[in-house]
Amino acid sequence: MPPVKIGEVVRSFGIGTVISSNSSIPVGSLVSGLLGWQEFCKIHSSKVIQLPMIQNPTYYLGVLGMTGLTAYVSMKELGNIKKKDVVVISTAAGAVGSVAVQIAKASGCKVIGITGSDAKVNWLKEIGLDGVINYKTDNIANSLKHYCPEGIDVYLDNVGGETLDAVLINCKRGARVLLCGAIQGYGKKTSQPVYNYPVAIARNIKMKGFVIIDYQDRFIESNQYLSELLKSGKIKHKEDIVVGIENAYVGLRKLLTGENIGKMIIKVPHDEAKI
Amino acid sequence: MPPVKIGEVVRSFGIGTVISSNSSIPVGSLVSGLLGWQEFCKIHSSKVIQLPMIQNPTYYLGVLGMTGLTAYVSMKELGNIKKKDVVVISTAAGAVGSVAVQIAKASGCKVIGITGSDAKVNWLKEIGLDGVINYKTDNIANSLKHYCPEGIDVYLDNVGGETLDAVLINCKRGARVLLCGAIQGYGKKTSQPVYNYPVAIARNIKMKGFVIIDYQDRFIESNQYLSELLKSGKIKHKEDIVVGIENAYVGLRKLLTGENIGKMIIKVPHDEAKI
Repeated sequence: MPPVKIGEVVRSFGIGTVISSNSSIPVGSLVSGLLGWQEFCKIHSSKVIQLPMIQNPTYYLGVLGMTGLTAYVSMKELGNIKKKDVVVISTAAGAVGSVAVQIAKASGCKVIGITGSDAKVNWLKEIGLDGVINYKTDNIANSLKHYCPEGIDVYLDNVGGETLDAVLINCKRGARVLLCGAIQGYGKKTSQPVYNYPVAIARNIKMKGFVIIDYQDRFIESNQYLSELLKSGKIKHKEDIVVGIENAYVGLRKLLTGENIGKMIIKVPHDEAKI
Repeated sequence: MPPVKIGEVVRSFGIGTVISSNSSIPVGSLVSGLLGWQEFCKIHSSKVIQLPMIQNPTYYLGVLGMTGLTAYVSMKELGNIKKKDVVVISTAAGAVGSVAVQIAKASGCKVIGITGSDAKVNWLKEIGLDGVINYKTDNIANSLKHYCPEGIDVYLDNVGGETLDAVLINCKRGARVLLCGAIQGYGKKTSQPVYNYPVAIARNIKMKGFVIIDYQDRFIESNQYLSELLKSGKIKHKEDIVVGIENAYVGLRKLLTGENIGKMIIKVPHDEAKI
């Protein structure tokens, strides 16, 4: 995507309530789409999806939204996880990671999470992970060797750089490495380099990049699966909400520094006076 | 594989003539196996394959051997090359590369080779490549952009490092990158780093490492296909032969410095007096 220009609305996925409509989507409906960082959004009905009303509509931004779909596709389709597989997930407490780790646990895998604060480590242990690594204080490669002496089958990478290197060196033959994000390089001129890619040769490793936009057609299947896990309590959904469009930048900063736990959401209060 | 110990026979694939046998393989037979750098080899019959006698038995070391199989599997199976695909191959004048480029040409692809000397560039142009890059004198990324403005579909990587980086940045969405070797790092403590792996995310690129030992069962199919191409003149086979076990190190050095064109072979003359 092209960079956002000065003065342009910042691009962002969102949900909103319809307050005026000349389409078949009635006023009061809940819709999702690329609504952007703004209090009001004028958008063509073909660019939004009308959503069934649920108890927690913000779930559509996380576990029942694009990040849930990303977790589902990466684990179930691209990673092809099977019972007893050893699964490692970076940014494990994030919006994608936290759903992915719970899908892997629900599928009978041994799951190791990599995250960046004690609060996140504790939360990931609470939800039952078999091992949690704090990349800010632990040596990732050594910790992975400790938790996965038998080697790693599947890795969902949201980080790149030295984390990816540490995982590669601990991968089993035939491992699947899913390249989903490279947050270590965001906002920098170059990414952190990776040195251990030759390991992929001898160990027959597949590294697969993907963007979730190519897997939109799995949305219904994914939401059915995730709704079941939510109902049975096998997925706990965590959100981090900042209130007010004027605080949007605070949310972005939290995301990039890693302060948030779970899906970072900006809530724009409904202000009758402004309509 | 473990390192070769001081005093041990250097491990190597080879072909040889049976001079003494207590198995069902008769004296005079041509066999292949891990015969090593030695004039005579005592080996169990289960560890060798008896080969049909052909006009050029050294073909079993190259185009009809492991390197031919590597080229076949990488292009036809892992790369899944189709007519009009844009295919890039590094160490294109080497034993694997030279067969791979010709398989790709015979399959109707646009083929770009990367190599390291004017002699190799000329030979690759002679056999009909659509573009040849000399990595020692050309800027690889710019040259790839020039030859493949539409983007690269398949890359067979025998090099790693900055060559891999230059290819990744020029890949099309959905490209297949086959990690077959990383010669830039051989004999060094660490590999050259790769920076452009995040490109794989947005462009949905698959990077797949492989060792040919996992694809032995494609041997007959591969040799049938390659024999046909040899017969019809669609594959020219190039060999670089040094004579005498005492010159084996010369062959290895040529391979690592890139002086050889085609399959590097050490010929051990048959010496009746030594038997």
